[in-house]
Amino acid sequence: MSDARNYATQLIEAPSVTPATGLVFDVMEAQLAPLGFEIHRFRRGSGPADSDEAPVENLFAIRKGPEGSRHLAFAGHLDVVPPGEGWASAPFAPEIRGDLLYGRGAVDMKGAIACMVDAVAQVPQDHGTISFIITGDEEGPALHGTRALIDFMREHGHQPDLCLVGEPTSVNRLGDMMKIGRRGSVNIWLEVEGVQGHVAYPHLADNPLPKLVAMLAELEALVLDEGTDWFQPSNLEITHISAPNPAHNVIPAKAEARISIRFNDCHTGAELSERVSQIAEKHGGKARPIISGEPFLTPPGEFSDIIAAAVKDVTGIEPEPSTSGGTSDARFLRSVCPVIEFGLCNATMHKRDEAVALADLDALSRIYEAIAKAVLAGK
Amino acid sequence: MSDARNYATQLIEAPSVTPATGLVFDVMEAQLAPLGFEIHRFRRGSGPADSDEAPVENLFAIRKGPEGSRHLAFAGHLDVVPPGEGWASAPFAPEIRGDLLYGRGAVDMKGAIACMVDAVAQVPQDHGTISFIITGDEEGPALHGTRALIDFMREHGHQPDLCLVGEPTSVNRLGDMMKIGRRGSVNIWLEVEGVQGHVAYPHLADNPLPKLVAMLAELEALVLDEGTDWFQPSNLEITHISAPNPAHNVIPAKAEARISIRFNDCHTGAELSERVSQIAEKHGGKARPIISGEPFLTPPGEFSDIIAAAVKDVTGIEPEPSTSGGTSDARFLRSVCPVIEFGLCNATMHKRDEAVALADLDALSRIYEAIAKAVLAGK
Repeated sequence: MSDARNYATQLIEAPSVTPATGLVFDVMEAQLAPLGFEIHRFRRGSGPADSDEAPVENLFAIRKGPEGSRHLAFAGHLDVVPPGEGWASAPFAPEIRGDLLYGRGAVDMKGAIACMVDAVAQVPQDHGTISFIITGDEEGPALHGTRALIDFMREHGHQPDLCLVGEPTSVNRLGDMMKIGRRGSVNIWLEVEGVQGHVAYPHLADNPLPKLVAMLAELEALVLDEGTDWFQPSNLEITHISAPNPAHNVIPAKAEARISIRFNDCHTGAELSERVSQIAEKHGGKARPIISGEPFLTPPGEFSDIIAAAVKDVTGIEPEPSTSGGTSDARFLRSVCPVIEFGLCNATMHKRDEAVALADLDALSRIYEAIAKAVLAGK
Repeated sequence: MSDARNYATQLIEAPSVTPATGLVFDVMEAQLAPLGFEIHRFRRGSGPADSDEAPVENLFAIRKGPEGSRHLAFAGHLDVVPPGEGWASAPFAPEIRGDLLYGRGAVDMKGAIACMVDAVAQVPQDHGTISFIITGDEEGPALHGTRALIDFMREHGHQPDLCLVGEPTSVNRLGDMMKIGRRGSVNIWLEVEGVQGHVAYPHLADNPLPKLVAMLAELEALVLDEGTDWFQPSNLEITHISAPNPAHNVIPAKAEARISIRFNDCHTGAELSERVSQIAEKHGGKARPIISGEPFLTPPGEFSDIIAAAVKDVTGIEPEPSTSGGTSDARFLRSVCPVIEFGLCNATMHKRDEAVALADLDALSRIYEAIAKAVLAGK
């Protein structure tokens, strides 16, 4: 079995549903230590296990190259989403059937982390500095995960030049897509208070629903932007609406809704929140925004060229530079250095019978190795 | 104690929360029989006690005048709404405190029925035909109440010339308002089906909420009419809206709402239902209407003049002819003959400590007596 397959099997064997701590980090530490890495592990959070403040473990590992050499960071997460029911084999008992390795985290993203470890084993230390930014809370609230790792790196003066996130960005085959950006995300709760009353006497009541409807119609009609060279247009979706009222003849006292905006780098979460608040207030309502991430963009250039060349070399195909999809920890890492995401095929991520092609593990190891060598050679 | 007060006390003593049967009808039969009335009682409905098909009792009583004489029908209901909590005296133990008689049904409308009985006792039989159309289900689903009485009257060839409904139409003092019409009512359930999906990939989903919002905005903007000489403008209220969705990042699969239209005689329930259905379909949705009543209007004329004169005679004030408020069984009786509603003060109806002024019982008896004599003398 190749090293990448072996590393992946070891990581999958350590159950690590978000928030992850302990065993799975022990396994990764045991993989990295022989490669000359200096390893820092720390926990953050002290709340109950089922709260947003549940303890979460983080790992920062670094192998320093010569003074003044470049620094490439590999970033990722060891936590996985709950396996759910109905697997053909036990989700935390990795099993090879045919050409596939099955297990929760196979593609998202223990498989990719295994490839990173295998890759750096092939990169001599004198090529430059390599680090690992690994959290146990990417699939959860992400309050004490990558954010805490970034704080740690700042405190200790670790400043990568580039950061590669191993999220499963490939769609139909390994190498067909990398993410050079992600949209930001804000959820906004909308509420209109009225005065309850009888439908036969509407002048004695104040129906909040026409106000909510007018507010939502105005929000729905907004054209936030036309998209950019690299981003699709920002999009607003109404995701929830409610004024539960069993009585046919009663005007309800309160109405509420929620919208979700996925926005490109024409906007910030704060600016959109303010804009929505003004529309809500105009219609007699209130808005309560929760910004879950700002957009990031690493415009095509040296880093994406290096990745594209490595992918082409190993797989023969050219990865599309995309900014589609949800959010990832790149939303935090963008504040550190330019960041791009590239990893395994995402077809089975978060599903039962999550699986990675064995050949993809080997190929991704070679791609990551080529990227590391090229990045470190760049200065 | 006057006869009206006595009759009212007897009726209130017989508990008769909707659907009413038995005892309260026995009491009324015992009041009417000595006055020369031929009494027909029948039950309709055979479902469980808590269903719309629960058995309900009806009473039709008639005292025929000379061949060719006019026929006045008094209509009303012996059922009452549930008493609720917190009464100062037991709701079905009528009690006089000060100038008031307390008890559930005191004004809505056992008190008025008592006055009707007292009134007809003062009208000699040779003045004309008088009937009573009394149901035990006006406050409930009203499926087997007045509708069944109308069927009974048709089958037996009883055709009143005019019908007086004893609903509590007076507002601040006895005699200040009569209802010459009522608006119709239709509730319409609206539904839009979509395709659930992730907010980050809206092109793979079909959000039903923008469609529902656009539909409701169009409905809300409708001007159904400007009102008529006798009716206020028809009014549409959104009474319910729902697309319950706990997940912030999910586009819901279905959205629904309900509207309630109170409409004047510019419209029919069917026409409005069709109009709303067309708007719903235009926005990709469906409408399911339930018409609870068509409007009625008895334009001012002989009947309202007779009532106004009788009220003025007894109370000194002129009743306002109104069409405001909810629906009543007049929605059904309108198909039989011209109908007007006039009765006690409605301030305490459906509330705890429902009470009628003793003086109002005496005055209403004299008003009903004068109306009966004038109507029967009219031919």
